[in-house]
Amino acid sequence: MFQPVYLDHNATTPLDPAVRAAMLPWLDGLCGNASSRHEYGRRARQAIDEARQKLAAALGAHPTEVVFTSGGSEANNLFVKGAAAGMKPGLIAVSAIEHPCVLKPAAQLARQGWTLQEIAVDGAGRVKTDAYAELLLSRPALVSVMLANNETGVIQDVAALATAARSTGAWFHSDVVQAFGKLPVDFRLLNAAGVHAVTVSAHKINGPKGAAALVLDKRVELQPLVAGGGHERGLRSGTENVPAIVGFGVAAELAAQRVAELPQQMQILKNRLESGLTAIGARIFAVDAARLPNTSYFAFPNIDGETLVGKLDREGFAVASGAACSSANPEPSHVLRAMGVAPEIARGAVRVSLGTGNSETDIEQFINALQATVGRLQGLTAIAV
Amino acid sequence: MFQPVYLDHNATTPLDPAVRAAMLPWLDGLCGNASSRHEYGRRARQAIDEARQKLAAALGAHPTEVVFTSGGSEANNLFVKGAAAGMKPGLIAVSAIEHPCVLKPAAQLARQGWTLQEIAVDGAGRVKTDAYAELLLSRPALVSVMLANNETGVIQDVAALATAARSTGAWFHSDVVQAFGKLPVDFRLLNAAGVHAVTVSAHKINGPKGAAALVLDKRVELQPLVAGGGHERGLRSGTENVPAIVGFGVAAELAAQRVAELPQQMQILKNRLESGLTAIGARIFAVDAARLPNTSYFAFPNIDGETLVGKLDREGFAVASGAACSSANPEPSHVLRAMGVAPEIARGAVRVSLGTGNSETDIEQFINALQATVGRLQGLTAIAV
Ligand SMILES: Cc1ncc(COP(=O)(O)O)c(C=O)c1O
Ligand SMILES: Cc1ncc(COP(=O)(O)O)c(C=O)c1O
Repeated sequence: MFQPVYLDHNATTPLDPAVRAAMLPWLDGLCGNASSRHEYGRRARQAIDEARQKLAAALGAHPTEVVFTSGGSEANNLFVKGAAAGMKPGLIAVSAIEHPCVLKPAAQLARQGWTLQEIAVDGAGRVKTDAYAELLLSRPALVSVMLANNETGVIQDVAALATAARSTGAWFHSDVVQAFGKLPVDFRLLNAAGVHAVTVSAHKINGPKGAAALVLDKRVELQPLVAGGGHERGLRSGTENVPAIVGFGVAAELAAQRVAELPQQMQILKNRLESGLTAIGARIFAVDAARLPNTSYFAFPNIDGETLVGKLDREGFAVASGAACSSANPEPSHVLRAMGVAPEIARGAVRVSLGTGNSETDIEQFINALQATVGRLQGLTAIAV
Repeated sequence: MFQPVYLDHNATTPLDPAVRAAMLPWLDGLCGNASSRHEYGRRARQAIDEARQKLAAALGAHPTEVVFTSGGSEANNLFVKGAAAGMKPGLIAVSAIEHPCVLKPAAQLARQGWTLQEIAVDGAGRVKTDAYAELLLSRPALVSVMLANNETGVIQDVAALATAARSTGAWFHSDVVQAFGKLPVDFRLLNAAGVHAVTVSAHKINGPKGAAALVLDKRVELQPLVAGGGHERGLRSGTENVPAIVGFGVAAELAAQRVAELPQQMQILKNRLESGLTAIGARIFAVDAARLPNTSYFAFPNIDGETLVGKLDREGFAVASGAACSSANPEPSHVLRAMGVAPEIARGAVRVSLGTGNSETDIEQFINALQATVGRLQGLTAIAV
């Protein structure tokens, strides 16, 4: 089978062999319902408890602070709508560059009497602290700012932003889906700074699809999105996806171990990649900001991102145009728009996101293929013009 | 490893080997994000499309009517809250014996200005048609009545109930989680009778945990529970759980094939089981109603259900007391309460639910173990009195 070089780890990651090995026994033989009061049920419950402990340990959280969900999108919706449901409609502030699964539920609240304000970012994709400070004067009830952006990789000083929001009494949430495993993430420290909840997702850290978590300061009162049998302390009902949760536990443990070395390794590869990109005329977005060590987001003048991604795919390189998670949407990236990037440049956006499996050879081959492809496309463009 | 005889298939089922085989390739190597526009993404998208077609075919639905979710609980919440979100608060009517994942979201609506009315059932667990007809006079906006109950196995004439509700203009939903695979379920027929949506869940039909669906008449306008990237026609965002969805497709196909024979096989085993139960003095609940061919729900005078389940577990038989899905809750079953069963009898409730793997030997051994255990417990009770 044709196996292109995978350079799209912010979209999803391959399952780590150790994760797969931990999951398989739960797909072989009988995996009980963890609520059942018999041998099969108890085994399933114990496996979930262990995974909860592993995830909590990896994040510096307490196991009782972990609420398992089916995905990062669900966890973000759970925070936004679940926290809002117990309050009188007020102000919700989310950064303009949040993932759609924060922006959309916030927009749903806006149709239910809430006021939604987007927190502006600068040209490098960083939250504008002056705009943010002004917004806090209006005393938001809910704030959500992601730790690292999925498109640009830009890292926000979430601890400082949360501390600044403290006096407002807002519940402060941070989507750390892209940061976890690529940066040290410690919920205890973040919580001490004023962050009340974070979202993590297994399939972004070489874990399985189907498991994620909202890690939550227990003072936050949430209404469940999925109400029913009362699982997850009543915050998320439904028969637990035991294999996926088990895999998530192992993936989180591995992510926490790897974060001591992986970022440096990634950074070396990324530096190589970006000198290549610059040499062949790419404009790299948010190049002045602190960014994830694995993410490069760039464009070439007069080359459409979709087209470039398609050509590279045929050359054997899997990369993303705009945000893969919402590629159903052909609009230019809302993240670049928020950064003030002109639409005709934003339409050229291509993202490379590295992962554990990538090598220097991958980068070299990619740059060569990119140079050739861009050359051909620019030639075409020149003729067309 | 100690492998008790599994008699708890309404709680969850073992993965069918063919389902597991179909899933494994998606856990080996790289499973892309189905939204990604490269080789890995396209493969994932195609696998989901095929699963959607399989599920639709198994249910007599159109692929575009299928909304994949992470579980039955989520699908039920999606219908109840998703349909309500686009309406002015009105009347929601749900049967008194619904699963908590219908009752609880309905109760959440009641705290948001909706009126919740439970539809009464008779002593055999069947919806009371007179009470239902009266309720319809109040013109509910939403109605939900399950096709088969998870505890008693009682089957409702959902088509007739939906037809009766037609003149009210209500959207009619039916939880067919327990019926699918055990009874023929045809969405086209149900839809023609006035059912607008049904819920199915993979792990109840020898499929994986982590996949389920709301099958939906497209005239129903739903707000998503999980909003974000716009997956599933905007009704359920989040990176798709490809392995689970693939497994669900295969499980649904097998379930539809098996339904030609399985019910008869189950019924023979169940008849054997129930003659044994009656012979040793059990009271079988809802014995006068049409019931699923795999489900027996019963109690012995003066014997606590939890205790009996615990003893049987040690003897090597995995059965349930009350509803396994909400066994976190030690209250006597709301289903039995709705049927007018006295609490002291309801507390004795034990459920046996058969599955594809069970044999006559399982039943004989179970009845023997049950007789001995009940004898010992009744001896103890006699002494204690
Ligand atoms: C920053 C961020 N948040 C949330 C999500 C959604 O997570 P999931 O795909 O697990 O629903 C993604 C990716 O999809 C993401 O990149
Ligand atoms: C009738 C019924 N509906 C819904 C559910 C919930 O489905 P899931 O466990 O997939 O969330 C169950 C079982 O748990 C059930 O028996």
